[in-house]
Amino acid sequence: MRSHLLTSCLSAVAFLVTGVANANDELIKMSQNPNDWVMPTGDYANQRYSGLKQINAGNVGKLQVAWTFSTGVLRGHEGAPLVIGDVMYVHTPFPNTVYALDLNNDGKILWKHEPKQDPNVVAVLCCDTVNRGVSYADGKIFLYQNDTTLVALNAKDGSVAWSVKNGDPSKGETGTSAPMVVKDKVIVGNAGGEYGVRGTMTAYDLKTGKQVWRGYSVGPDSDTLIDPQKTTSLGRPVGPDSSTKTWEGDQWKIGGGATWGWYSYDPQLNLMYYGSGNPSTWNPRQRPGDNRWSTSIWARDVDSGAVKWVYQMTPHDEWDYDGINEMVLSDQNIGGTTRKLLTHFDRNGFAYTLDRTNGELLGAEKYDSKVNWATKIDMDKSSPTYGRPQVVSQYSTDHNGEDFNTKGVCPAAQGSKNYLPVAYSPDTGLFYVPTNHICMDYEPFKVGYVAGQPYVGATLSMYPPPGDHNMGNFIAWDGKTGKIVWSDPEQFSVWSGALATAGDVVFYGTLEGYLKAVDAKTGKELYKFKTPSGIIGNVMTYAHGGKQYVAVLSGVGGWAGIGLAAGLTNPTEGLGAVGAYGGLKNYTALGGTLMVFALPGS
Amino acid sequence: MRSHLLTSCLSAVAFLVTGVANANDELIKMSQNPNDWVMPTGDYANQRYSGLKQINAGNVGKLQVAWTFSTGVLRGHEGAPLVIGDVMYVHTPFPNTVYALDLNNDGKILWKHEPKQDPNVVAVLCCDTVNRGVSYADGKIFLYQNDTTLVALNAKDGSVAWSVKNGDPSKGETGTSAPMVVKDKVIVGNAGGEYGVRGTMTAYDLKTGKQVWRGYSVGPDSDTLIDPQKTTSLGRPVGPDSSTKTWEGDQWKIGGGATWGWYSYDPQLNLMYYGSGNPSTWNPRQRPGDNRWSTSIWARDVDSGAVKWVYQMTPHDEWDYDGINEMVLSDQNIGGTTRKLLTHFDRNGFAYTLDRTNGELLGAEKYDSKVNWATKIDMDKSSPTYGRPQVVSQYSTDHNGEDFNTKGVCPAAQGSKNYLPVAYSPDTGLFYVPTNHICMDYEPFKVGYVAGQPYVGATLSMYPPPGDHNMGNFIAWDGKTGKIVWSDPEQFSVWSGALATAGDVVFYGTLEGYLKAVDAKTGKELYKFKTPSGIIGNVMTYAHGGKQYVAVLSGVGGWAGIGLAAGLTNPTEGLGAVGAYGGLKNYTALGGTLMVFALPGS
Repeated sequence: MRSHLLTSCLSAVAFLVTGVANANDELIKMSQNPNDWVMPTGDYANQRYSGLKQINAGNVGKLQVAWTFSTGVLRGHEGAPLVIGDVMYVHTPFPNTVYALDLNNDGKILWKHEPKQDPNVVAVLCCDTVNRGVSYADGKIFLYQNDTTLVALNAKDGSVAWSVKNGDPSKGETGTSAPMVVKDKVIVGNAGGEYGVRGTMTAYDLKTGKQVWRGYSVGPDSDTLIDPQKTTSLGRPVGPDSSTKTWEGDQWKIGGGATWGWYSYDPQLNLMYYGSGNPSTWNPRQRPGDNRWSTSIWARDVDSGAVKWVYQMTPHDEWDYDGINEMVLSDQNIGGTTRKLLTHFDRNGFAYTLDRTNGELLGAEKYDSKVNWATKIDMDKSSPTYGRPQVVSQYSTDHNGEDFNTKGVCPAAQGSKNYLPVAYSPDTGLFYVPTNHICMDYEPFKVGYVAGQPYVGATLSMYPPPGDHNMGNFIAWDGKTGKIVWSDPEQFSVWSGALATAGDVVFYGTLEGYLKAVDAKTGKELYKFKTPSGIIGNVMTYAHGGKQYVAVLSGVGGWAGIGLAAGLTNPTEGLGAVGAYGGLKNYTALGGTLMVFALPGS
Repeated sequence: MRSHLLTSCLSAVAFLVTGVANANDELIKMSQNPNDWVMPTGDYANQRYSGLKQINAGNVGKLQVAWTFSTGVLRGHEGAPLVIGDVMYVHTPFPNTVYALDLNNDGKILWKHEPKQDPNVVAVLCCDTVNRGVSYADGKIFLYQNDTTLVALNAKDGSVAWSVKNGDPSKGETGTSAPMVVKDKVIVGNAGGEYGVRGTMTAYDLKTGKQVWRGYSVGPDSDTLIDPQKTTSLGRPVGPDSSTKTWEGDQWKIGGGATWGWYSYDPQLNLMYYGSGNPSTWNPRQRPGDNRWSTSIWARDVDSGAVKWVYQMTPHDEWDYDGINEMVLSDQNIGGTTRKLLTHFDRNGFAYTLDRTNGELLGAEKYDSKVNWATKIDMDKSSPTYGRPQVVSQYSTDHNGEDFNTKGVCPAAQGSKNYLPVAYSPDTGLFYVPTNHICMDYEPFKVGYVAGQPYVGATLSMYPPPGDHNMGNFIAWDGKTGKIVWSDPEQFSVWSGALATAGDVVFYGTLEGYLKAVDAKTGKELYKFKTPSGIIGNVMTYAHGGKQYVAVLSGVGGWAGIGLAAGLTNPTEGLGAVGAYGGLKNYTALGGTLMVFALPGS
């Protein structure tokens, strides 16, 4: 009962696979049991909605800390634990330790797996030593290490079943995202857009770890798995060399488009959805052209990796509007018809709604009023610029040129929202969005490519919009109207993932360290608790022994908290984050603690 | 109202100093305000008793976590924060960071002081990178760093008022204990008995940091500040060269007797009390003689450092029965007379009661039934062995000789109790004692002295007494009868400091990470909560805004947790602790979190 979407999908899949049980069937069934939290995203749709409602708007104010667990690691704790039956699986930043905790015994450690990684990988992680969580399928826990090693651990004892290397950290290729298991495959992306890494999405065989397919974000059609005729963009075939022809020479070879976000999957369509990152370098003057398919939304067939459709949101990105934010799948009634939607809150400040069956663009609206780099997304299908943002030349860093400091661009490079996932409640029909409310000055400069070295090519500083004091808002968004329903201002950017529940409560964390519960309909704050450290993890919920729990990792870091995490003090360090979030040091220090909440009583 | 002792002492002091306000007056007055926790020991008497009773035996079961704070540091978190008015001061293990937290604002960080220390000091800290807390006086916070730097920080902004070096880490001299402020002096001891360090107690001027006096634990009378005629032991003058004549040659120069425990002070008598540590090396064959004044209880005049009396508990220690455990001062009625008592639970398994005015030995009883190295302490004043333990030769590691593995000695080197302080309740008249329930095999070997290198000279392994599964007990002890009133078994040694309160509740923490509240009269468990990491800190309490809080640092480490803290796996590493506490890894991981508890409601 996690959502209508998955309920209907399950029947579809059961039909398609004609009764053959596979990991996918098992996962879909498990993800429908709200007592568990079997995927890092809660479900394939990335709704992060739970049917549990023991904790509800009426009683959440009485929430208290039920139990806690220190991970033994400091720095940014992203993602969320999994819960499967009586066991919780908790992951950590580098060295990416995994714990299996016994929920029947106050979190006693059933096993611990601490990978041995070359510590040099830390130097090529642009934005903290984060890991966004493990996945489960077929009795195994899948860990994607910072050094790009994908490991299958036996869930019973933590022993290694197989492991495979997905990339080469010496070239700046790293792993920070959570793997996604679909059917008989474990699918992983990569990180490293700040090192000229070429984005990949790669599927490995669940049983053996053997590579099944790999699709690049940029490059020849044979690399991207784009079919010039069959793959469409905004309804039209993309044609041959759709990526390479938008780059100068072979710049696509260091062209970025990393894939380090969250992935969704529609079992009925057999398509997975994700976003590709910024083009490399950040200096737009150095890479003329649209730089396809960076900053794009992708729909790939999970069996073959073939691209069904692709849509580029920010052609020739000039601001690091990396497109990796997650795609939320929902079925909603639009104009009397139930549409299979994909909703995406992009870094560039626009919330996109597409028909996920074919990539038709249904809407794109600003979800922060201060967004100024583009006036709108052209929705005129007959226009030559259909689907493209109408860029304001004053804020075009390419137009202004190298070594020119373009001031007052909103949003800043971190985007109106970063990789911290939204939640969607089918009850309210609203999206709950952790947002950044920040602008920037951006100065591109010429940079040479050296494998494994930063290939950024821009200096920036970030700050709240002039006259505003809050650097973030937690908002409720109505995708049908393209409007903000309510907005809760936050002192700092909201850098944690949201959770919506059937109890009409929405949860999120703050960089100062508060776990907050707000009314799903009104946004009214119903509860807050100061956890040990800043929260950049995603809130999750589960039930055990008839009791609902809400859990979140507390441990400041990530891009927003990189100043604290890496001990940086120069304002432009941390890709501009150090100056913006300098005030965090007055509220919190590094940590690494799982905090679990419940209502009083047994 | 913290205790009768201090109430009466205050009048005495007020009389003695004829109205001149000094830091001592201020501290005594502040320590009588149960809303604050102004000394690491709670009060000068080391009773760790609070007059607060909002949280009591009837409602403590409803306790919940009120707020939390990650210190940003892993490894063993010993000691406890201070609370003075609206500000809490929290310290950390190496690098010994100090935070001032705003209690009016959910623990917002008012200032942070992070010392720059040579990281090489970590290598000469025998038993984790611990720090036992800061002290307050005269508007300053006093921090005693691991590298023996004593720093005065302005409490308002954390700026450094003065700093002074107390020892030389390159010779193994380190600082782990909390300073004590008495009158116009800041007094610090030293650590390093495992490196042949000679113990010192040193007083510095509160205003300037200038050294006022230093008394050694071993060496010539001029060093120890022992007066051959005036200083007594068991009622008799100690005579000339009382220390040096009990050592072979100049072995006293590397003779140990470190002073890294907790210190008490009686304002009326103007005496401070503390214990000196084990003699160096641990190999008794290498250092014939009584090795005075290692493993002794000291009473020093705080103005001059002059020794009023001294009593050696374990002459010629053969088991690392380091004598640094704290001295608890209480006034109790014995045989119809109110006696000024000093009670001390020694590592050697005997609980000593002395008249603190003159060092008269009133009693010495085993507080763990398994203690077997000595049959008793000779209480016959006419005996030539008066006051000495009657050693069982089977367990005499000196008698058995070098390279002989003496088996089954109880207690183990960690003692029946280690440095984790007891609490005393004047309401119940009972001492609440965190105990170890462990035995050992001990094999001395010849070791050469090299400055700054380990000078241990024994290999040991520790384990629960045969047939027992619990490695610890939390006990209530009646000092008048010398008997255990109740005993709560614990799976691991109880390695946290206790707190007694007027609410008839006693608190302590466990190595697995539980904060526990038990009934002061019966020991019945009333509450437990699993904190993020193992607890080796001391529980404290304070009130703010009319609400009582209970706080404890959670972060496993110390000698018991050194395996986890330093990543050791060989059972005999960590001076034998790694094997004994290997099971801890199934319960907890490193951490560093302040956990603050309160009753529900505002």
